[in-house]
Amino acid sequence: MAIVVRNIERAERSVMDRLAACGVATVHEAQGRKGLLASYMRPIYPGARIAASAVTISAPAGDNWMVHVAIEQIREGDLLLLAPTSPCEDGYFGDLLATSAMARGCRGLVIDAGVRDVADLREMKFPVWSRAIFAQGTVKETLGSVNIPVVCAGALVNPGDVVVADDDGVCVVRREEAAEVADKAEQRVAAEDDKRRRLAAGELGLDIYKMRERLAQKGLKYV
Amino acid sequence: MAIVVRNIERAERSVMDRLAACGVATVHEAQGRKGLLASYMRPIYPGARIAASAVTISAPAGDNWMVHVAIEQIREGDLLLLAPTSPCEDGYFGDLLATSAMARGCRGLVIDAGVRDVADLREMKFPVWSRAIFAQGTVKETLGSVNIPVVCAGALVNPGDVVVADDDGVCVVRREEAAEVADKAEQRVAAEDDKRRRLAAGELGLDIYKMRERLAQKGLKYV
Amino acid sequence: MAIVVRNIERAERSVMDRLAACGVATVHEAQGRKGLLASYMRPIYPGARIAASAVTISAPAGDNWMVHVAIEQIREGDLLLLAPTSPCEDGYFGDLLATSAMARGCRGLVIDAGVRDVADLREMKFPVWSRAIFAQGTVKETLGSVNIPVVCAGALVNPGDVVVADDDGVCVVRREEAAEVADKAEQRVAAEDDKRRRLAAGELGLDIYKMRERLAQKGLKYV
Amino acid sequence: MAIVVRNIERAERSVMDRLAACGVATVHEAQGRKGLLASYMRPIYPGARIAASAVTISAPAGDNWMVHVAIEQIREGDLLLLAPTSPCEDGYFGDLLATSAMARGCRGLVIDAGVRDVADLREMKFPVWSRAIFAQGTVKETLGSVNIPVVCAGALVNPGDVVVADDDGVCVVRREEAAEVADKAEQRVAAEDDKRRRLAAGELGLDIYKMRERLAQKGLKYV
Amino acid sequence: MAIVVRNIERAERSVMDRLAACGVATVHEAQGRKGLLASYMRPIYPGARIAASAVTISAPAGDNWMVHVAIEQIREGDLLLLAPTSPCEDGYFGDLLATSAMARGCRGLVIDAGVRDVADLREMKFPVWSRAIFAQGTVKETLGSVNIPVVCAGALVNPGDVVVADDDGVCVVRREEAAEVADKAEQRVAAEDDKRRRLAAGELGLDIYKMRERLAQKGLKYV
Amino acid sequence: MAIVVRNIERAERSVMDRLAACGVATVHEAQGRKGLLASYMRPIYPGARIAASAVTISAPAGDNWMVHVAIEQIREGDLLLLAPTSPCEDGYFGDLLATSAMARGCRGLVIDAGVRDVADLREMKFPVWSRAIFAQGTVKETLGSVNIPVVCAGALVNPGDVVVADDDGVCVVRREEAAEVADKAEQRVAAEDDKRRRLAAGELGLDIYKMRERLAQKGLKYV
Repeated sequence: MAIVVRNIERAERSVMDRLAACGVATVHEAQGRKGLLASYMRPIYPGARIAASAVTISAPAGDNWMVHVAIEQIREGDLLLLAPTSPCEDGYFGDLLATSAMARGCRGLVIDAGVRDVADLREMKFPVWSRAIFAQGTVKETLGSVNIPVVCAGALVNPGDVVVADDDGVCVVRREEAAEVADKAEQRVAAEDDKRRRLAAGELGLDIYKMRERLAQKGLKYV
Repeated sequence: MAIVVRNIERAERSVMDRLAACGVATVHEAQGRKGLLASYMRPIYPGARIAASAVTISAPAGDNWMVHVAIEQIREGDLLLLAPTSPCEDGYFGDLLATSAMARGCRGLVIDAGVRDVADLREMKFPVWSRAIFAQGTVKETLGSVNIPVVCAGALVNPGDVVVADDDGVCVVRREEAAEVADKAEQRVAAEDDKRRRLAAGELGLDIYKMRERLAQKGLKYV
Repeated sequence: MAIVVRNIERAERSVMDRLAACGVATVHEAQGRKGLLASYMRPIYPGARIAASAVTISAPAGDNWMVHVAIEQIREGDLLLLAPTSPCEDGYFGDLLATSAMARGCRGLVIDAGVRDVADLREMKFPVWSRAIFAQGTVKETLGSVNIPVVCAGALVNPGDVVVADDDGVCVVRREEAAEVADKAEQRVAAEDDKRRRLAAGELGLDIYKMRERLAQKGLKYV
Repeated sequence: MAIVVRNIERAERSVMDRLAACGVATVHEAQGRKGLLASYMRPIYPGARIAASAVTISAPAGDNWMVHVAIEQIREGDLLLLAPTSPCEDGYFGDLLATSAMARGCRGLVIDAGVRDVADLREMKFPVWSRAIFAQGTVKETLGSVNIPVVCAGALVNPGDVVVADDDGVCVVRREEAAEVADKAEQRVAAEDDKRRRLAAGELGLDIYKMRERLAQKGLKYV
Repeated sequence: MAIVVRNIERAERSVMDRLAACGVATVHEAQGRKGLLASYMRPIYPGARIAASAVTISAPAGDNWMVHVAIEQIREGDLLLLAPTSPCEDGYFGDLLATSAMARGCRGLVIDAGVRDVADLREMKFPVWSRAIFAQGTVKETLGSVNIPVVCAGALVNPGDVVVADDDGVCVVRREEAAEVADKAEQRVAAEDDKRRRLAAGELGLDIYKMRERLAQKGLKYV
Repeated sequence: MAIVVRNIERAERSVMDRLAACGVATVHEAQGRKGLLASYMRPIYPGARIAASAVTISAPAGDNWMVHVAIEQIREGDLLLLAPTSPCEDGYFGDLLATSAMARGCRGLVIDAGVRDVADLREMKFPVWSRAIFAQGTVKETLGSVNIPVVCAGALVNPGDVVVADDDGVCVVRREEAAEVADKAEQRVAAEDDKRRRLAAGELGLDIYKMRERLAQKGLKYV
């Protein structure tokens, strides 16, 4: 049951960069309001925004052995995404693993568990989105798997799916849909630019989106 | 049942500014330790401190239609305060709505639900106090009400009540009591200045507040 | 049952400084993965790192009287550590108490409850690790104790134990073990320096730690 | 600020009995989906269903003095409803207080805090809806108020409001609206009887409520 | 994006009955410790144990329209499984829907949200595993989908997967693996019978499982 | 660091039986309102009440190996008490371990983690107080310790301490204090009997405890 899948497909770097530029909220809307990880997944410092191809890790509670195994599978521009097999807040990952991952080209970590050495990680500019910050150490005793589908913070993530993360949280985009979602997301950004100008000038959403009639039909009363 | 109240009373701007200057902890004490919203209401970035007149929104879970309706009711110096009718963490509000609200003079948002585009909001200096940061989008299908009394994060807020918010959280002051609370809050600030000097000089609270006798009466033993 | 213990043993200042330099995650590992407080204990601002001798406070829910009593017991280089006798998020501590504590040489506060005036505390550079930020005021009606053993956020802390706190959380080290733990922690730091260099150069943990054989024995398959 | 209001209006007993017969879910719908207390308010044993006039208590964290004061204000058929002024799980109430309250005709307790002696309360058939079951004792040191408006588990409750509670949770009905809500609730019950028969016979809600056309209009596809 | 898949594959009834007989804990072990839903999914009354084929529902927060749509898709021996698209505790389901579902042969409901009318459901012997019990009503305004893959309480569930639920929680078994898992589960049950007899007779697990040598090798000391 | 302490002192059986008869709430009061475990520790079925000598287990997250080791240390009338070294909800314990423990005379389990097979445990009348019910299995890879002091659900428990548990939760009594606490607890029970009679007859706590004067002094107003 414990396997490492070595060859996975990845989305194109340019597509991932376009998704990163659009950000989590827009990408999530562009793909039909799906793919968000739970709201408890928070960045360890503000301001990071990435999109990268997921190297997935399924690991037992309190055991970070598979992180070492996964790092070997990283290619330039990937990120690590870890889902424990049962709920856990232990600190699976710290500055040494980040050093190793960065040396392989890793862009960041998404982990439905804990992380530590966060002051160092902030200084190294290695972004992490996690459920907890917790110094609790882990062991290296039990196998897990690398690059299998996992459910992370309530979302299904396949190896090679694109994971977008910023201050709003984390969103997963299916690899096969990434280019199409990037197109739609950029269209939303473009459309928003116009709306933003009109709203900033004082026009109301009620008028821009022509909501007044439908509100009246539904029975809204002004008193 | 879905109504928008257009004309509400507001406290005087000068009173609100005095409350803002005193801050949440002092205002809460000055009015008899009441009016705090739950501790899970946190600012999306540190350092903001506001006091403003509440435009209240009662909205269904996952439906932000009424935010558009509420923005039309904003006057210079107001804030938006949203309470969902059932528990919800969805991202009702983002940078476009903030742009629109700011164009109407809105000072900020207090929301017992989620918010998104927080990196943009931070850059725009639009402060938000929320239960969650979550990119999850919402629909525009079901009516709610604007400017009715709501219970937000455990506190009753009437339209036109003054809402004070800073890094310590959020506190509501009844509009009719705002001037009196501002007086009392400023007295506390003044009294604290003297105490702060004495404490900084090394005097003990035990002596300044004459606590030693009462502690002994209650039976405190030093060993 | 309400007592104040005036004379407690403290660890040597130099030992505490060495522990602070190593940080929470390393110290926790160095003493056998024990002593961590719960992960909900978070700093009110990033970047502080301290190690200090604990003046412990056992206080009733919503009653901060004993903080005043405890401040008299502070010596240069101590920190305050408060455990409520039942779960509580009230704001036991704010800028006035911090002013008084700093005047006595206090380095910070660890509190399994709430704190307020956090903008002031940040400006004063008085670090706090707490369960909550909450403006809720407290009373001064019921006794507690100072400098007795307490369980704080799930960890046993004796008066005079060394408490290490940084962005990763809080860890307690028994006073009698402090020097030995400092030795072990510094050895870990030294050992990590070498590993960090090798990992940064692209060597894999799989090879540095010779994991490949044991992984294969346990049955890990590469596909 | 600490007051006891002795004379409060109550709804008619017969109206309250009709509301109890309809149950929480139906009453909540009948009054426009409002008035529910938070879902964490759970009965200490299954099967109780009551509706009674609220004697409200605002009490400090960890202080049950006002419960004794409130019991004197109980009239036959009332219930006690307690909201702490800051979050608290302490056991404010046990079998002795229940004995006293029952002797005054009290029907039950709704408390946004803890309760204890629950095995005895179950045997006495004294129903309680609470946030927690916790043996933690409380003190009698600080005043609160009785029969003032309180926010309990997120809902505003005025003294004399009707509180309906069963296995689904707790709902508050304004005293002035109680008769009208009872009418509407009974209409819902009657209407549900017919629907229940049809559904039990295998008819589909899709047909009974004529949903198929609107689903198609909105774009639902069967594949 | 809103679709209803009408024809889904189901596991054999006999296989599902064998899985039900083994129970959640055993089935979860038999398939390699995977497939559990989060521990917050609790039965509304004790003692139920079912295994059934999932009719899955993806529904917006606070909108139970799709439940009506899903009921038409139920075949004898199915269960309903609902995952909201954003976190929600509203009461999507009550006794009327249960009446309708039972008339179609439905065995129960698994819902990562709220349920109501639980006293009625208990009496009807309609088992539900839910995140919350909450009377909060829902609307019928926004489409979702029926019989698509969903992530429910942290686990991926495909339409037609076998869902096993009892007092220990809920576990999903892939339809294609159901027969094999049933075999393995029954082997575990058989093996446990022998162990149970030996343990009941006073033999120790340390001896039955031959653990003493490995414990000594790892360094366990008896003092 | 992994040790098993074989010879521990135990309190007298008769003292433990007296504590059980008094119950958790009374025992907790009798020893000065200390010793309670967190309110999240709940019984898996209602009605059990025990007091027993603790065999303590410190175990890694997700690893139940030490439970097997601990069972050998059980003597007639003991209970098992397990504290994980980091937060964990996994199901460490089920019906097989209960069978083994009961064969050694074990009275029950207190565990700051998960338990499974709860339907079986209920039928076997093996009481458990736990943080969670969760079928998640555990491994047997990493050592822990048996009969060392542990912090369980926020309370310090030494091996041989008396643990009292009932529907109100769990309380620990130091072994050396057990006889004295039993005396005080029985005195409370006796005193409560008289008060219960007077309260049942309609006398008020306000009068029995002579509270009226002190309430007036503190400023309580009746209106």
